[in-house]
Amino acid sequence: MQHIHSYIQEHKDRFVNELIELLKIPSVSADPAFKEDVIKTSEEIKKSLEKAGCDQVEICETPGYPIVYGEKIIDPALPTVLVYGHYDVQPADPIELWTSPPFEPVIKKTELHPDGAIYARGACDDKGQMYMHVKALELMTKTNQLPCNVKFMIEGEEEVGSESLSWFVERNQEKLANDVILISDTGMIAKDVPSITTGLRGLSYVEVEVTGPNRDLHSGLYGGAVANPINILTQMIASLHDENNHITIPGFYEKVEELSTEERAAMAKAPFSLDAYKKSLDIKEVHGEAGYVTNERNAIRPTLDVNGIWGGYTGEGAKTVIPSKAYAKISMRLVPNQDWQEITALFKDHFERIAPKSVTVEVKPHHGGQGYVTPIDTIAYQAASKAYEESFGKTPIPQRSGGSIPIVSLFEKELKSKTILMGFGLDSDAIHSPNEHFGIWNYLKGIETIPYFYKYFTEMSKNK
Amino acid sequence: MQHIHSYIQEHKDRFVNELIELLKIPSVSADPAFKEDVIKTSEEIKKSLEKAGCDQVEICETPGYPIVYGEKIIDPALPTVLVYGHYDVQPADPIELWTSPPFEPVIKKTELHPDGAIYARGACDDKGQMYMHVKALELMTKTNQLPCNVKFMIEGEEEVGSESLSWFVERNQEKLANDVILISDTGMIAKDVPSITTGLRGLSYVEVEVTGPNRDLHSGLYGGAVANPINILTQMIASLHDENNHITIPGFYEKVEELSTEERAAMAKAPFSLDAYKKSLDIKEVHGEAGYVTNERNAIRPTLDVNGIWGGYTGEGAKTVIPSKAYAKISMRLVPNQDWQEITALFKDHFERIAPKSVTVEVKPHHGGQGYVTPIDTIAYQAASKAYEESFGKTPIPQRSGGSIPIVSLFEKELKSKTILMGFGLDSDAIHSPNEHFGIWNYLKGIETIPYFYKYFTEMSKNK
Repeated sequence: MQHIHSYIQEHKDRFVNELIELLKIPSVSADPAFKEDVIKTSEEIKKSLEKAGCDQVEICETPGYPIVYGEKIIDPALPTVLVYGHYDVQPADPIELWTSPPFEPVIKKTELHPDGAIYARGACDDKGQMYMHVKALELMTKTNQLPCNVKFMIEGEEEVGSESLSWFVERNQEKLANDVILISDTGMIAKDVPSITTGLRGLSYVEVEVTGPNRDLHSGLYGGAVANPINILTQMIASLHDENNHITIPGFYEKVEELSTEERAAMAKAPFSLDAYKKSLDIKEVHGEAGYVTNERNAIRPTLDVNGIWGGYTGEGAKTVIPSKAYAKISMRLVPNQDWQEITALFKDHFERIAPKSVTVEVKPHHGGQGYVTPIDTIAYQAASKAYEESFGKTPIPQRSGGSIPIVSLFEKELKSKTILMGFGLDSDAIHSPNEHFGIWNYLKGIETIPYFYKYFTEMSKNK
Repeated sequence: MQHIHSYIQEHKDRFVNELIELLKIPSVSADPAFKEDVIKTSEEIKKSLEKAGCDQVEICETPGYPIVYGEKIIDPALPTVLVYGHYDVQPADPIELWTSPPFEPVIKKTELHPDGAIYARGACDDKGQMYMHVKALELMTKTNQLPCNVKFMIEGEEEVGSESLSWFVERNQEKLANDVILISDTGMIAKDVPSITTGLRGLSYVEVEVTGPNRDLHSGLYGGAVANPINILTQMIASLHDENNHITIPGFYEKVEELSTEERAAMAKAPFSLDAYKKSLDIKEVHGEAGYVTNERNAIRPTLDVNGIWGGYTGEGAKTVIPSKAYAKISMRLVPNQDWQEITALFKDHFERIAPKSVTVEVKPHHGGQGYVTPIDTIAYQAASKAYEESFGKTPIPQRSGGSIPIVSLFEKELKSKTILMGFGLDSDAIHSPNEHFGIWNYLKGIETIPYFYKYFTEMSKNK
C-alpha cells in the first residue's frame, strides 16, 4: 500500500491531539453521575466517523447508553469488516494515586516510551485502541486505498457488561452482517514481540450482602455474643479457596477446558521473565493455583477475585461497632466451556448455603460473559499475521489473554462470524488502574498495521 | 433528703432542655472535621458546672482536647467524690439509618419510654449520663444538701482512647485526690432491674493494612497470578477464629480470668430472655464462643471483632480490579488480667507472621485499656446500693459489662481510689448506633439517685 508511512508522519500530531480531546470527556459508564459525559462522547465518536469517511453514521438508542454505528459500503460484492470498540471507560478511582488528573491527558516520556505516552483514563482501554481504527479508515479513504466494505459499532457499556449491545446485536443482524469482526481491546506481549489474542476468559460478576443484627451495635455490649457480618463475610470468602488455591465451589471446574501438554509447552515458549514481572509489581512472590505457572494462571485457568469489600466504620480514627451489614463485589474469570450463567448460579447456591444461621446472605448477579477461543487457521488470522509482518517485520505470536470481552462469543452466536483481536497495548499500560497510559508509538503502529489487515483479508477472501 | 422530688418535678423541663442544647453540638472526637465543635462543647460544660455551684471551674489544656475540671470544697475534713464523664461522642454514621438527624435532638414516646426519650448522638453515651451529675450537684447546692466535697473531671477523648486524660491524671494527682470516683457511663439491666456495674472489659484496637501489587491491577490480566490483598485479608482475618469461635492468637487466653461455677451460676440469675434478645436484633441465632452462654460471651470472655473493612471498588456498578491495598479496623475486648499492650503485641506478631510472602502487612495499634473488676464489699458499693434502694425501692444487682472504660484502671493506679459505676442507660438505647436515645425517666431517675449516694457515702465514711 502506498503513502501509509508518509500520511502517518504528516498527520501524527493531529492523530494524537484528536485522541487527547476525546480523553478529556469522563465517559465512566459505571457511575450515573457521568451520564451526560458518556452521551457526549457518543456524539464525538459520530463526528469522528463522519470525518473519517463513513457514508452513513447514526447514534442508535438502546435501553442503556447509545451505540454509534457507521459504515462505508464501496461494493456489496467485496468482503465487509465490522470494527467493534467501546467509548466508555473504567472509573478513575483511586484518584489520589494518579500522578496527573485522569481526564486531563498529558504526554510523558518514559524509558519504555521514548516517543512519549498519553496518560489518561481510557488512553489504551479503549478510546486509544478504538480510535486507531477511525484514523486507519481516514488514512485508507483519503489515500483511496480502502479495499473493502467497513462497518463500525462503538458501544458505551463495555465496562459494565454490554447489556445494551446484546440487545442491539440481536435486533440488527442484517445491518451488522460481516465477514470478520475486528477488535483492538487487548494487548501484545511486548513492543518488539507482536501477538494476536486467540483466547479470552469469560466473566461472572456478583455482589454479596451479609446482614447480621438489624442495626449497628456497640462492640463492647454485644461483641462475642452476636454474629459480626464482617467476620462472617471474611470467613465465607476465605472458604472459597483451599490451601492449593483451588476454588471450592462444587462443580466449578467441571467443564474447564484442560490444555494438552503440547499446548502448554507452546505457551511456555512466549518470552516471559518472572523476576521482571515481580519487579514491575513490587512483589516478593507471585500467588496462584498450585500446578500452574503464572502465564497459565492468568490465561487458561479460572479465578475468583474480590474486587471490592466494605462494611462498618472506615473513616478516620476508631469506632467500636458491630455493623449491621457487610458487602463484597466478587468476580470470577472463566475459561472456554464454562458457562457464565451456570457458574453464577453455582456461586449463588454455594454462597447462600455456607452462610451460618446467625446471618442472612443475598447474592446479586451483576453481569457476565462467555470465554472464547479463536482458531489460527482462518483467513482472518492469516491476514492479521501478514499485516503485523508488514508493520513490525515479525510474525506475531498467538496468545491467550486473561481478560474478557464477553461480546465476542455473542458475535459468533448472533452474527455467525469470527473475531480477530489485534491488540497494540502493553501490560504496563495500567488499564483499569491509576495512571493508565498508551504509547504514542503503539498508537501509530496500530494505525499503520490495520490497513494491511484490510488489504490481505480482501485479497485472501477473493482467492478463496 | 428533703425536696429532691419536688425540685426535680419543678425543674425537669429545664433539665431536659439544657441537655438538648448540649446534644446539638456535634462533638465527634474521632473526626478532625468536628474539632471546633468538640472545643465549643468543653466551654458549655464549664458554664454548666459554674451554674450548678462549683466554686472553681477551669478548662485544662492537654496535648489533645481539653479537660473540664470543677470543684466545690465545703470542708477538707469531709470525704471527696470525683465525678468523671466525657463530653465527646461517637461518629454518627451511618447517617442514612437515623430516623431523625443525629444532632437535632427530638423527644419521641415509645413503648419502653412512655414519658419520652431524647433521640440524638450522645443522648446516653455520655452527655446524658454525665449531665445527670451536673444537675444532681445543682439540686444539692440549691437545696443546701451537699454533704461532702465534689470534684468534676469531664474529658473529650473517651471515644478515641483517652490519651490526654492519662497525661492529665499523671500530672495532677494532688488536684484530683479523692475518696471515690463516680461514673455514669454504663447501663442497667432493665428499668425495673437496677444494677451496678462491677466489671468492665479491656480493649485493644488496631488497624491493619495489606499491600499486594504496587498499583491496582486489571483482574483479567492479573487475576489468578498475583495475590489479591482483599482475598488475603479475608483469609487472615478468618483464621483468627477456630470452628469453636475461640481466638487462635497464641497466648491470647493465657491470663484470662476463669470464673468459678458459683460466680457463673450467680450471673445466670440475672433476668434474661434469649428469645427477646434475638427478636430485638432480628436474628435467627446468636453466635459466639462454644461453652459459654450469651451473657457470658459479652461480659466475662474476650472477643475479636472487625469494626470496619475496606478495599477495592466500593462504588456503584462493577469494576474488575485487583486493588493494591486492603484495610481493616479490628478491636479485641479483654477481660481482667489480660494486659492490653501485651495483647496488642501478640496480635501484631501473629498477624504479621501469618501473612503470606506475596503481600506485606502493617499493623498499627490505635489505642486500648485494661479491664476492671470492682469489689462489692466497699463503702462505695454499699452506699450506691442503698441509694438505688431509696430511688428504685429495690436492691441493685451487681453486673459485669462487656463494654470498656479503660481509664477506670488508670484511676486506680494513679489516684489509688476505687470507681463506682452507676449506670442508668439501657441496652436498647442504641449507643454507638443510629438512633441513640436516652429515656427521660432514666435521666431524671439518675438525678434522683445520685444525691442519695453522696449522702450515704458521707455517712458511712464517718462511721468507718
